[in-house]
Amino acid sequence: MRIGLLIIGNEILQGKISDSNTTLLARYLIAHNRELSSTMVVGDEIKSIHQGLNVLFSSCDVVITSGGLGPTQDDVTKEALASWFKSNISYSQEAFEVASKNYQRFNRPVPSQDHPYCYLPQGFIALENSTGFAPGLFMQSEGKYLLSGPGVPREFKSLLEDHFASLILSQLPKSEELIELYTVRTKRIPEEKIFKVVDPTLWEKLAAFGSVSSLPHIMGVDIGVTLKAQSSREMENKKSQLKKIFLHSPLAGHIWHFGVTSLEELIVRVANEKKITYGFAESCTGGLCSHRITSVSGCSQTFLGSVVSYAESVKSSILGVSEQTLAKFSAVSEQAASEMAQGVAQKLKLDIGISITGLAGPGGGSSLTPVGTVYIGVWARGKSSVYHYHFPGEREQLKQRFSQGALYLLLEELQREN
Amino acid sequence: MRIGLLIIGNEILQGKISDSNTTLLARYLIAHNRELSSTMVVGDEIKSIHQGLNVLFSSCDVVITSGGLGPTQDDVTKEALASWFKSNISYSQEAFEVASKNYQRFNRPVPSQDHPYCYLPQGFIALENSTGFAPGLFMQSEGKYLLSGPGVPREFKSLLEDHFASLILSQLPKSEELIELYTVRTKRIPEEKIFKVVDPTLWEKLAAFGSVSSLPHIMGVDIGVTLKAQSSREMENKKSQLKKIFLHSPLAGHIWHFGVTSLEELIVRVANEKKITYGFAESCTGGLCSHRITSVSGCSQTFLGSVVSYAESVKSSILGVSEQTLAKFSAVSEQAASEMAQGVAQKLKLDIGISITGLAGPGGGSSLTPVGTVYIGVWARGKSSVYHYHFPGEREQLKQRFSQGALYLLLEELQREN
Repeated sequence: MRIGLLIIGNEILQGKISDSNTTLLARYLIAHNRELSSTMVVGDEIKSIHQGLNVLFSSCDVVITSGGLGPTQDDVTKEALASWFKSNISYSQEAFEVASKNYQRFNRPVPSQDHPYCYLPQGFIALENSTGFAPGLFMQSEGKYLLSGPGVPREFKSLLEDHFASLILSQLPKSEELIELYTVRTKRIPEEKIFKVVDPTLWEKLAAFGSVSSLPHIMGVDIGVTLKAQSSREMENKKSQLKKIFLHSPLAGHIWHFGVTSLEELIVRVANEKKITYGFAESCTGGLCSHRITSVSGCSQTFLGSVVSYAESVKSSILGVSEQTLAKFSAVSEQAASEMAQGVAQKLKLDIGISITGLAGPGGGSSLTPVGTVYIGVWARGKSSVYHYHFPGEREQLKQRFSQGALYLLLEELQREN
Repeated sequence: MRIGLLIIGNEILQGKISDSNTTLLARYLIAHNRELSSTMVVGDEIKSIHQGLNVLFSSCDVVITSGGLGPTQDDVTKEALASWFKSNISYSQEAFEVASKNYQRFNRPVPSQDHPYCYLPQGFIALENSTGFAPGLFMQSEGKYLLSGPGVPREFKSLLEDHFASLILSQLPKSEELIELYTVRTKRIPEEKIFKVVDPTLWEKLAAFGSVSSLPHIMGVDIGVTLKAQSSREMENKKSQLKKIFLHSPLAGHIWHFGVTSLEELIVRVANEKKITYGFAESCTGGLCSHRITSVSGCSQTFLGSVVSYAESVKSSILGVSEQTLAKFSAVSEQAASEMAQGVAQKLKLDIGISITGLAGPGGGSSLTPVGTVYIGVWARGKSSVYHYHFPGEREQLKQRFSQGALYLLLEELQREN
């Protein structure tokens, strides 16, 4: 049983936006014990869409398309599907009703009957869209399945969730296997060092359990093993054996999590469990640490707030960094980081205050303090510690690395506290 | 002349990361008057890579691959290329030297001669990687070109920039056309309304100049026209005609920019030109507005800082929002937004203070103040104005929409000031 994705959109091939529907579909399928075989991206021309359908249907039983279902003239997916399936587009009362429901859901007047949404290739059915206006499409013929959704990721996701299981999964032979990605997240160690230096036998040990992957992120590597099992008992058994291998590996000290929880989710969970309040004094990260934490629902229990102290005047007036420190050591210094962390903790009444001051560039570097330099201060239980790093990369990457460094230190401090 | 991209990586088909190399390559090609024809994503198996090469080389003269060049055992791109091109992998002194240079650039000891980086399919050449360790690959045969780069976007990008022009572009027939994407950015109007209600003849007028696309974003639609011309004079002429069409359209009031500048870049540019200082009091956006602004190099000239006032205690202690306001109207109210904007402007000594207070959910909503409600305060020249919106979406989308709403208002205020 092979499943392929055809992404239709000039905007992706012209670099205006990045595709995220592959990720959405892949995660959805794994959660249903299925795998995505391949994705193809083609432009908004009927010929290219036909080529994509030819390629994917030559090896897949199920093809999902995204994009080109909207009301504008560059939306040609329906025309392409009609000609590929040797069908004709015609008015469909059912499609009109589905489109009307989509509009009513947003308290909008129903579309007129000559609206493109009311027209479908014959043999296709229209699907309700719970997050947008354009109906999805479905057709099934000789053991092949086609599901078409809008390109907007929110709408593509809801189309999958609303229709994939009932229209396609329920008709396919039941998956005989459970599939799970076992993920282990490491910090502060490069990929090559893990498998060449720290634990040269690790890869082979893991490969005995399933296909292994190693995914380097900003300042961390995720190691993944794709586990397959016939029963949930067998799955649990494999997972516990794998965990033992990792815990006995020299890599153990670099592991910060077994599972797919993000760093910010883990921080929120630990802080909430321990009822430890925290916040940031952000200079070079400019709000990114706070943004990452506040993307996690429930963070407000213990994340109280932050000061983005970009200008020196804000560092001194709000955080109480002394003018002397700024004049003598500069704002990018151990002393400033220490005073910023203490300042934000005291002003906002936090148990833990984390400060980040550094140079994200591209300008402003010197031989003493090059771009990529960062000081991260951790104020907790009455005292500050300051960590000094130098990272490579450009402005946006450096902001990401700085924030990752700060969040690692915050997690360690949270896990240390009793 | 067709160019295709083959992305190799289970991590993408398993949903662990999203592809961004398509976007990088597409933008690089357009800047060189070329277009990306198609992208295909396949897993880390030799058979799948061969299928991808078959599909892309059947219609393309140039195929670029990304991924699978690293040192771990799931990296099989070299093996797949060798067998597809009927070549053998062998030690290459040249590859050893290229790899050594890659290591020396990071002050790391050179790899041993049995390192996988020193082995290549015969007939291929190794390419220096200016941002990582793994060498890229190049081969040319019977008018077909293959360039392989690492999957890490930073490394893929530098491989393109360092080698694509000299190895491939210089050998291709010179592009006879200039290509440019003419982009117009609109705000606060849905895609369907633009072309069905506000200006029903717009699409056809634009289509006379080139292929038209319409790309809905968070709270805005970008309209793009792909212009082709034989000379830069013809190109400029087309652009000025297009601009006139837009300026005479009823859509004109919704246009906030002609070009591809991002909202945050435009804000930084206008604020710096006018020397107007600004900052945010962020509640529900949790630092996102500040993060977006500080992603723009040069923002520190006029962006002074922000307060992320997540907890009520921070709203009152740092921003001076009165306890009465919080008790009587709650933190998500016009009154709180007004006091927050004024508070941040006065405390941080800003010309413009922008506040954002709302409910990003999923919890905390009520019938009076449902999730998606936001109040945005603009304090400037001694007085506050507060704007009230209600947006659809989930937590992360809402944070994006709230921040977009705040940045639109900030830009309008900056453009209004003299």
